[in-house]
Amino acid sequence: MSAAPVPDGTVPGLGIDAIHEAARRLTGHVVRTPLLNSPMLDELVGARVLVKAECLQLTGSFKVRGALNALLTLDEDARRAGIVAYSAGNHGQGVAAAARLAGCPAVIVMPNSAPRIKVDNCRWWGAETVLYDPRTEDREEVARKILQMRGMTLVPPFDDPGVMAGQGTVGLEIAEQARELGLTPDTVLVNCSGGGLASGVLTALNDAFPGLANHIVEPAGFDKMARSLAAGRVCANPRPSGGLMDALAGPVAGARPLAVLRHYDVTGLTVTDEEALAAMGAAHRFLKIVVEPGGAASLAAVVSGKADVRDEVVVLVASGGNVDPEVYRRALAD
Amino acid sequence: MSAAPVPDGTVPGLGIDAIHEAARRLTGHVVRTPLLNSPMLDELVGARVLVKAECLQLTGSFKVRGALNALLTLDEDARRAGIVAYSAGNHGQGVAAAARLAGCPAVIVMPNSAPRIKVDNCRWWGAETVLYDPRTEDREEVARKILQMRGMTLVPPFDDPGVMAGQGTVGLEIAEQARELGLTPDTVLVNCSGGGLASGVLTALNDAFPGLANHIVEPAGFDKMARSLAAGRVCANPRPSGGLMDALAGPVAGARPLAVLRHYDVTGLTVTDEEALAAMGAAHRFLKIVVEPGGAASLAAVVSGKADVRDEVVVLVASGGNVDPEVYRRALAD
Repeated sequence: MSAAPVPDGTVPGLGIDAIHEAARRLTGHVVRTPLLNSPMLDELVGARVLVKAECLQLTGSFKVRGALNALLTLDEDARRAGIVAYSAGNHGQGVAAAARLAGCPAVIVMPNSAPRIKVDNCRWWGAETVLYDPRTEDREEVARKILQMRGMTLVPPFDDPGVMAGQGTVGLEIAEQARELGLTPDTVLVNCSGGGLASGVLTALNDAFPGLANHIVEPAGFDKMARSLAAGRVCANPRPSGGLMDALAGPVAGARPLAVLRHYDVTGLTVTDEEALAAMGAAHRFLKIVVEPGGAASLAAVVSGKADVRDEVVVLVASGGNVDPEVYRRALAD
Repeated sequence: MSAAPVPDGTVPGLGIDAIHEAARRLTGHVVRTPLLNSPMLDELVGARVLVKAECLQLTGSFKVRGALNALLTLDEDARRAGIVAYSAGNHGQGVAAAARLAGCPAVIVMPNSAPRIKVDNCRWWGAETVLYDPRTEDREEVARKILQMRGMTLVPPFDDPGVMAGQGTVGLEIAEQARELGLTPDTVLVNCSGGGLASGVLTALNDAFPGLANHIVEPAGFDKMARSLAAGRVCANPRPSGGLMDALAGPVAGARPLAVLRHYDVTGLTVTDEEALAAMGAAHRFLKIVVEPGGAASLAAVVSGKADVRDEVVVLVASGGNVDPEVYRRALAD
């Protein structure tokens, strides 16, 4: 888990072969989520829209794929010692579930301000939770102590070839499912925060469909990856957090994901909270799936018309469905 | 479409072979919906619960399966003349979509009090809608005139072997998907109104898994099929309509479905509106799917504990997801 980007922009450990290997490791452990379509949504958008429903994945987001793949590449001793993540969100649950699937211990480091339900969910999967005070403690310092004292391995949320390859299995499945439908995608849109999902999915889909138009979608005001791509170096968001799309509002883009995304001609798009809520409503009405605000960003780019995809075959990822009831109620208002 | 029950309780045209034929006709036209599972839901219920998500089907319910199968068994001339349904609900949309998939005309007869969205949905699929005044006109009379004048064929909502066989493909897929998971169901629960879905699914699943425990689930106060099974003849509900589970509140049980269900040792269960709302909330939270009240009846029987399924492998059908936002908001309250 120490490979760094090399000068030609490739990342050791992430390529189409690594994603195929990840798929073999994950088969039977994670859900092969459906690629959904709605003729009514297609008409609304003016394109054929195929939605990879990762909200139907174990733990309600794609995160378990990367975590489990990273875990299964560890040697026997490291696996037995267990894994650590610092995350109050979908990554924490993904790591907790991955550890349970592989039968190894996990520690999730979370701020003591994390919602009770997120703490409970990690514990439900059998993980130990360590709460720290974000006003006086540094989460990396807390995690480092655990790693040292207990010989555990950190599973980073995105900046790791094993994690990126695991998320790339989403793209492999999309390619297989699109072919089963007899369709060749013109455009892909992927929700992007640190870039683990985006780098994996784009690697898989560009291998399957050369000439694909690539889009990443970020929350307005939190487009750290688009700015990183423009600057050619890792950039942070101007604000550390905020807005409804919490799953996409992490502070900084990943170095390895950035190195991968620079391979492709990637267009960055941003969507507002209101557009994300409208897309959640469209997913509810037309697809009958529950999507969280950050999970709806790519659909929002398409439904709002910000992505110009008229008459195309479009694939996108609905990356998560863990949403508070009061936020969901807002998405149903019209 | 005129086969009647014969004395030994079998229905000409509905058997496992008819369901396999229906599956061949429907492949590529309808969605092979996923069989979903949630470890958290399993723990809540104390059983392994596999949910066939027919809310993800085209038109948001299983109804298109039966309608399309019935339509595809018509001869060329009858198909060209087109099909008629009287339904303001999921069956109307299913017939409209089936006609579009097969490229033939459809007329949907609806009361002029039907919600605008349901009329619009049928028209969106290309069907002609004929509105009648329920205070002064009889819907069967309105439909009969259309059938006679235009040589069209009526597609009944449930009391028809072709329709029942089409709905039975839900059961075939459940059997295949359970086997892919290496699981043998102990118990099946199916939402029941006229009995088209229940008779088809039970035929398919009892063929695949002999010894299965069979349950039908109806709204409390609308248990016409359970009472029909007890009486050995078709019974009607005491009230013509009411409650949140409108998809299951039709007035009368089907004669052919009753004849099929009498083959099996079927236990009838009922659930309340409050239990259906709680099950919709569970589907939202644990499975990330949108289910309508009537579509959630079987899940409600399991979540409420009314179905005694402890330590079993349970399969059930989430049969539809067409729900008004204000009802859905109630399901999110806790």
